[in-house]
Amino acid sequence: MKEKLGDAGRKGRLLIIGGAENRTCGAGALETFVELAGGEDARIVVVTTATEVPDEVADAYTAVFGRLGVTSVRELRLLGRAAADDPATLRALEAASGVLFSGGDQSRLRTLVGSNTNELLKRRLHQDGLVIAGTSAGATALGHWMILGGRGHEVAASTVRVGPGLGLLDNVLIDMHFNERGRLPRLMSGIALDTRLLGVGIDEDTAIVVGDGRFEVVGTGVVTVVDAEQSTVAYAASDDEPMAMLDVSLHLLPAGCAFQMNDRLPAIGNMRGPEEG
Amino acid sequence: MKEKLGDAGRKGRLLIIGGAENRTCGAGALETFVELAGGEDARIVVVTTATEVPDEVADAYTAVFGRLGVTSVRELRLLGRAAADDPATLRALEAASGVLFSGGDQSRLRTLVGSNTNELLKRRLHQDGLVIAGTSAGATALGHWMILGGRGHEVAASTVRVGPGLGLLDNVLIDMHFNERGRLPRLMSGIALDTRLLGVGIDEDTAIVVGDGRFEVVGTGVVTVVDAEQSTVAYAASDDEPMAMLDVSLHLLPAGCAFQMNDRLPAIGNMRGPEEG
Repeated sequence: MKEKLGDAGRKGRLLIIGGAENRTCGAGALETFVELAGGEDARIVVVTTATEVPDEVADAYTAVFGRLGVTSVRELRLLGRAAADDPATLRALEAASGVLFSGGDQSRLRTLVGSNTNELLKRRLHQDGLVIAGTSAGATALGHWMILGGRGHEVAASTVRVGPGLGLLDNVLIDMHFNERGRLPRLMSGIALDTRLLGVGIDEDTAIVVGDGRFEVVGTGVVTVVDAEQSTVAYAASDDEPMAMLDVSLHLLPAGCAFQMNDRLPAIGNMRGPEEG
Repeated sequence: MKEKLGDAGRKGRLLIIGGAENRTCGAGALETFVELAGGEDARIVVVTTATEVPDEVADAYTAVFGRLGVTSVRELRLLGRAAADDPATLRALEAASGVLFSGGDQSRLRTLVGSNTNELLKRRLHQDGLVIAGTSAGATALGHWMILGGRGHEVAASTVRVGPGLGLLDNVLIDMHFNERGRLPRLMSGIALDTRLLGVGIDEDTAIVVGDGRFEVVGTGVVTVVDAEQSTVAYAASDDEPMAMLDVSLHLLPAGCAFQMNDRLPAIGNMRGPEEG
């Protein structure tokens, strides 16, 4: 029997996508999003705050969700705090079974942090079965902190810039387009600033489905977990100088693998076997 | 009292450089090489087998060693096994206090593997105080295996190609230009093939000085150590598909840090403090 989704009193799910997700019909992360949000009955809101081309982005997602059988897709642009606190916005989000944060520039999502929209999403995620997805910029923004940028290829203070995120996933720092853009130094630089945070680097067309204190990996790439809880860090005296980090634990998790967040335990799951036939 | 170097019965040192070392006078890895090889009295052989522009490379090193006060610099081109087995070659190497393998294409160094030159270098390194350095292509070639190439940004079988190396450093797989070229996936792919190997990724203008079962880091970048001895690997069914790797231990070691190779213990050393004044 298929689980009922989107019910009051039920915990929701986060779907955090590393960007560049497959948008053809029937593939990957977006299909998982639709399934979790109620299948053809899903009521989807796409938040396009991060992008500078919201029309294009909203059209593209409306098309792919349409191909997946979903007719109720609504865009919320939310350009600024007033829009994010607007009762009309809150009513639209209250009616949704799934909310997707598009890509773009995550700095633009900072105006939502602490807004009524932010509070509503937290409440409905934890108590009301809401499914919340974010891709690329929208992925890192879901964490307690988000990565805003940085420069350089070493683990150093200047390699990462972080700011407050939407706080939908505690104690986790998310990075995206991960192996495609060689971002382990950036993520590790962020983790070095607070080694209690768990680093989660998500490849393109790859996602984690988060719920009940664990996540599972879906998609074609890998999720890289950086666990520095047992590590020793020696900061350099200047921002640009590399720091020393000893005993960092790294896990590479392709689709089918899972990770228990509380006790920080990875598990190899149902990896794909040799092609049959 | 300064230690006497190059003596019979004394163990030598390896100096493994990640490429693009500073070649100005009085700086970094090459100065360390000269110091280890006997200072102004050093008798240096530069092996240019790896490069397609040996004249240029030999001239450049002759110039920098000259600026460091060394007058005895000789080039050995060693294009093929016959040259590497030639008694005249062996005599030249027997007379050296330091041997430097230049950069270039490490595939070209394969003809030296197992040659009389290779055997002589092993013997003199372990019993005769010889100092052997390699940079870039010449760095990875010093290991038991060398990395020949590979493609892709995930940890997968196709991301790395390895072949036999000169075997001057056992149980270690060396990669170079490391953070500059984002090569952790390549090195980890090599380590995944044999998790008993220790992965050592060396940044540009950075080197490790190896001796007595440990190494120290010198230079401006970082040395990344990949220790997968305790890790779990799940290979994918095809070469291009990413594999799962759990519980890989990672150490980032800037200058001043050290690593004990037998018990695989990193140590934070004398990192640079804030600039004075």
